[in-house]
Amino acid sequence: MNTSIGIVTAQRAHFDTPLTFRSGAVLPQYDLMYETYGTLNADKSNAVLICHALSGHHHVAGSYADDPKNVGWWDNMIGPGKPLDTNKFFIVGLNNLGGCHGSTGPASINPATGKPYGSSFPVVTVEDWVESQARLADMLGIQQFAAVVGGSLGGMQAMQWSLSYPERVRHVLAIATAPRLTAENIAFNDVARNAILTDPDFHGGDFYQHNVVPKRGLRLARMLGHITYLSDDAMADKFGRTLRSGKLSYNYEIEFEIESYLRYQGDKFANYFDANTYLLMTKALDYFDPARDFDDNLDRAFARAKANYLVISFTTDWRFSPERSRAIVNTLLHNKRNVSYAEITSTHGHDSFLMQHEHYHNVMRAYLDNIAREFTA
Amino acid sequence: MNTSIGIVTAQRAHFDTPLTFRSGAVLPQYDLMYETYGTLNADKSNAVLICHALSGHHHVAGSYADDPKNVGWWDNMIGPGKPLDTNKFFIVGLNNLGGCHGSTGPASINPATGKPYGSSFPVVTVEDWVESQARLADMLGIQQFAAVVGGSLGGMQAMQWSLSYPERVRHVLAIATAPRLTAENIAFNDVARNAILTDPDFHGGDFYQHNVVPKRGLRLARMLGHITYLSDDAMADKFGRTLRSGKLSYNYEIEFEIESYLRYQGDKFANYFDANTYLLMTKALDYFDPARDFDDNLDRAFARAKANYLVISFTTDWRFSPERSRAIVNTLLHNKRNVSYAEITSTHGHDSFLMQHEHYHNVMRAYLDNIAREFTA
Repeated sequence: MNTSIGIVTAQRAHFDTPLTFRSGAVLPQYDLMYETYGTLNADKSNAVLICHALSGHHHVAGSYADDPKNVGWWDNMIGPGKPLDTNKFFIVGLNNLGGCHGSTGPASINPATGKPYGSSFPVVTVEDWVESQARLADMLGIQQFAAVVGGSLGGMQAMQWSLSYPERVRHVLAIATAPRLTAENIAFNDVARNAILTDPDFHGGDFYQHNVVPKRGLRLARMLGHITYLSDDAMADKFGRTLRSGKLSYNYEIEFEIESYLRYQGDKFANYFDANTYLLMTKALDYFDPARDFDDNLDRAFARAKANYLVISFTTDWRFSPERSRAIVNTLLHNKRNVSYAEITSTHGHDSFLMQHEHYHNVMRAYLDNIAREFTA
Repeated sequence: MNTSIGIVTAQRAHFDTPLTFRSGAVLPQYDLMYETYGTLNADKSNAVLICHALSGHHHVAGSYADDPKNVGWWDNMIGPGKPLDTNKFFIVGLNNLGGCHGSTGPASINPATGKPYGSSFPVVTVEDWVESQARLADMLGIQQFAAVVGGSLGGMQAMQWSLSYPERVRHVLAIATAPRLTAENIAFNDVARNAILTDPDFHGGDFYQHNVVPKRGLRLARMLGHITYLSDDAMADKFGRTLRSGKLSYNYEIEFEIESYLRYQGDKFANYFDANTYLLMTKALDYFDPARDFDDNLDRAFARAKANYLVISFTTDWRFSPERSRAIVNTLLHNKRNVSYAEITSTHGHDSFLMQHEHYHNVMRAYLDNIAREFTA
């Protein structure tokens, strides 16, 4: 019985306790958009936090009464009878600080100036997000999450929860993620950032006042991103060298189907996503590095962790390859943490973590059912 | 005894027999810049053609009297006592048609209009290049090359020689190349092209008249290119996560060493390379596909080939992986061609083909020494 959770409602939480970022910057007040699914049980032991990746947000599952086609980005994973079963868990999804889906971010009006934050919005780190998420948990009366769950950049937040608040998370589900970016990962981010930063419509981040949007840069950033989300094999299977018109045109218009796909994805993204949020998200990825404060020793960084872990990787993910997940697993084993690891055979590359995939979902379901037994027993 | 060939001189050849491109476009006249090293023997049997890759040109080895620091791009391979031994071979390097190093290209003045060709310069294919190279060979009195040699896009030209002119090439040395691009290869090219095409300074390819250059786009294209030329391992070894200033700055300036490297390479390239040439070169890569005219059957495409082949790949090359070279080897074996294959262990990714690498150079030397015995015996 895999059914949708149905109609959901986004909520806004306001916080007026200043938040000090890792950079030293201070945000005096801020809002977080969030959604919840399922029911918080009496002892508040069944809460699960979903952390989103680069372009995600608080609308994780279900749809809106006034916009029924707007289905949450992880609806295949969350709902009654689904791996993240809303009959068992109370699930919280939020839009991260710095985002562009309602939480306070660069496009929000700074109450101190009456203008959008723009370039004055602080660079956010994964640690800062966890801090803001902990305040949301406080507001919801959640002292400890049964699990914090995320893929990619979301997986980094899930891991960071067990480092920032070892007592506040029982299980970490870290999917298609890495203990930190490689030079190549940073390089791709830097090309994407430079596409935005050098777009003449970027205006140093304060494009809002110029009534323009750096669409060219955002479009390129997203096109490049999509290459790293897919696998070589997935692209070959889906597009191959198929020509859009069936013959070569000898010009610079769309010629191959893969070009059509990338440009379409780029255009779509550039029409709704905020360029400053894109920059912030990629920086948060670059900065995440729990080992940095421990002489690059990841084992020492995880010494304070107390959670149990499920780590999942996908065979064709070349953005965060299985090798990177195995590094996480090794560190957890060195620290005598309980850790389950699944390397899922999938052709869909990094994007696999968002896909409906039987083996992957079965692994998630089995692990989460065991968690549910902890509080229903 | 590995010594430089010393001072070399570039030469210009003019052709006024119209060249019909595969697209149907006609170039009434054109120039090719070229250099030669060594001496053509009496029966003209020791000539070797070097085909360049995306950003290469005719200055392959040696240096110029008035510019001694300007050393050819493959100087480590070519010279007296080097694998391509100028005591044995007569070596020809040229700048391809459509290039930006002196051969007729988009930045050249169109005699018919008195203005740069710009957007009116035809899209060039690998087959068109081989045609123009054959005319250069005619002019030099070379009926048959002892070998045609190239890496990457240059390797495609070398293979195409054995298909366009089976009688005019005895050996093909195809290095770090592929029988055609994958969807992922095309995708990277398309992002690079779109960076240029959407640069406001591109002006549809006719930026010359506007006294601007689409540097932003070229810079991004080159940054992205460099990621695909290096390997994940090479980047990790060379840059890792080293911070340029030793600490995090929490802004969008250069933070990691890898960013410094990419931006430097991008800036350097954007200051001298022609944007239209970049577009042409990437299109030639996309279009190369000998199997297309044979129902995607590569074996049938190579049925007319008569050459002997040396195919070389590098273990960490993810742009054109060893798997792609093995596909070439298999097709040659199916056609009962003589083929030698070497898979070189190297950490330098696609760029390996340009590097001084003992095993690689020894393989080249052994194969070329055998060729030299054919005409010195």
